Amino acid sequence: MITREEITSYLKSLQKSICEGLEQEDGKAKFSEDHWSHHQGGGGISRVISHGNVFEKGGVNFSAVEGDLPSFLSAKVNPDAKRFFATGVSLVMHPNSPMVPIVHMNVRYFETDKGDCWFGGGIDLTPVYVNDAQARYFHHCMKETCDAFDASYYGKFKEWADNYFYINHRNETRGIGGIFYDYLVPDSQHSKEYYFNFMQAVGNTFLKAYRPIVAENKVLSYSEMQKKWQLIRRGRYVEFNLVYDRGTRFGLETGGRIESILMSLPEHASWIYNHQPEEGSQEHDTLEKLTKGIDWIIQDSEFGIRNS
Amino acid sequence: MITREEITSYLKSLQKSICEGLEQEDGKAKFSEDHWSHHQGGGGISRVISHGNVFEKGGVNFSAVEGDLPSFLSAKVNPDAKRFFATGVSLVMHPNSPMVPIVHMNVRYFETDKGDCWFGGGIDLTPVYVNDAQARYFHHCMKETCDAFDASYYGKFKEWADNYFYINHRNETRGIGGIFYDYLVPDSQHSKEYYFNFMQAVGNTFLKAYRPIVAENKVLSYSEMQKKWQLIRRGRYVEFNLVYDRGTRFGLETGGRIESILMSLPEHASWIYNHQPEEGSQEHDTLEKLTKGIDWIIQDSEFGIRNS
Repeated sequence: MITREEITSYLKSLQKSICEGLEQEDGKAKFSEDHWSHHQGGGGISRVISHGNVFEKGGVNFSAVEGDLPSFLSAKVNPDAKRFFATGVSLVMHPNSPMVPIVHMNVRYFETDKGDCWFGGGIDLTPVYVNDAQARYFHHCMKETCDAFDASYYGKFKEWADNYFYINHRNETRGIGGIFYDYLVPDSQHSKEYYFNFMQAVGNTFLKAYRPIVAENKVLSYSEMQKKWQLIRRGRYVEFNLVYDRGTRFGLETGGRIESILMSLPEHASWIYNHQPEEGSQEHDTLEKLTKGIDWIIQDSEFGIRNS
Repeated sequence: MITREEITSYLKSLQKSICEGLEQEDGKAKFSEDHWSHHQGGGGISRVISHGNVFEKGGVNFSAVEGDLPSFLSAKVNPDAKRFFATGVSLVMHPNSPMVPIVHMNVRYFETDKGDCWFGGGIDLTPVYVNDAQARYFHHCMKETCDAFDASYYGKFKEWADNYFYINHRNETRGIGGIFYDYLVPDSQHSKEYYFNFMQAVGNTFLKAYRPIVAENKVLSYSEMQKKWQLIRRGRYVEFNLVYDRGTRFGLETGGRIESILMSLPEHASWIYNHQPEEGSQEHDTLEKLTKGIDWIIQDSEFGIRNS
């Protein structure tokens, strides 16, 4: 039987390997490290990068915390459960260049003091300018990882991401999505080990999916106008995280470590009254792709970039 | 009996006079004007100023809209009520200079199709650097307006503002507060006219309370470091509005006009991981004053500035 310790040990190693890969891609900045403890038990390691060649601000957070189970969760899961344990790695990277997409990943494991447990997670990409070939490459990586476990996963989890990473008041998706899943509960069909393996597969897909896109785009030049558009898109990112994101709101409501929770916000963001991109512009084109239900899976031969 | 029309007519004239006063104070930029309609009935006039001498971005919004009453409100007010009518003026101004405080005002009137009605509103100030004399002047203006109606109002509504404009996850007030009130329901003691008069008194206090502070501070020079602090404080303003503000969340949930609701967000805001002002710095001093329960009312002779 998989233990808490095995899961946290994997997650710590995942945090380390992701930080190493992103530092290599950045070529200049290094992640700093903060150890913190949770007021009800446990703690975490926040690793933050800033003012790099590629990354303006980003954080890769590991946490393993305990606490009293909020009543909405005990009502849902097990009315007798009083305490929770949660561990995960969560990351958001905000690049300097508008040509390099924002990325988010989270893998997490949750259990109660009554033996209930489940896995959740996902990876999603938020380009400031949508590049179709890269969007396809990214989704192909997600599908490949999912298909090794269950042929139904990619379709289900892609749809879940479309619905989850949705800015309802804007009628826009946050980005081009990816996968999102939650409440994967071990049962007679799928063991805890099976879901733990899936968690590891998702975690290990992150660098494979993101680095080639960064490498391809970080060398591109951009205009002041494109930088301005990036700041507006980051404003949308802030709106999503503060208004809708369950992880953020759960953290804010349960007294989590604020700096680690809000690490996901960009260094600079902007709101312009009634900004409307011109028809036919690249910005307008991107907005038209921030919609649910786009099928990014196509024939392999059409990919624009390859996994390196 | 006061009618809807009298209230909306006052609110339109209030929007006009406030915009005129702010344009005079700015000396360069003019408010633009957008007329819009609500999907369920009614509409509004959004007036926006940007890139002025004093104001980087600001909006003064008038609205008079109808719609289906959200169930949480009908449960609270009158289970038989199905529709609402709401009218109000709401404004937020974001100055260029960190020396000039952000300000917010809202006065509103609400009624249901079953004859329930009430008034709400408030004014609050968010300095990037707290100036004690100006904070006292601002609160004195609020108290004077309240005292003309009821000796208990200022104390009650000041406390309400402290509690309402509170960023719980930061343990900080948004600014130095002011007054906030809601659900002032006409009854045998206080007529609808009485509360309408109070609404007008609050609306008419805005320029008197804010302009002298702007006039005194807009000429001050500031450093790059102070500008950076302003962007961080604006980040907190965004956090409050998106996470806690009832008006914002009500608007987002009931399908209001997004651009008018989010007009309150600054053009530029910033989030720095784990930013902690040095002890003894002006920034640290300001943080210590962003707390509930400060009594800003002192002897008149100690005021630093006077109403001009």
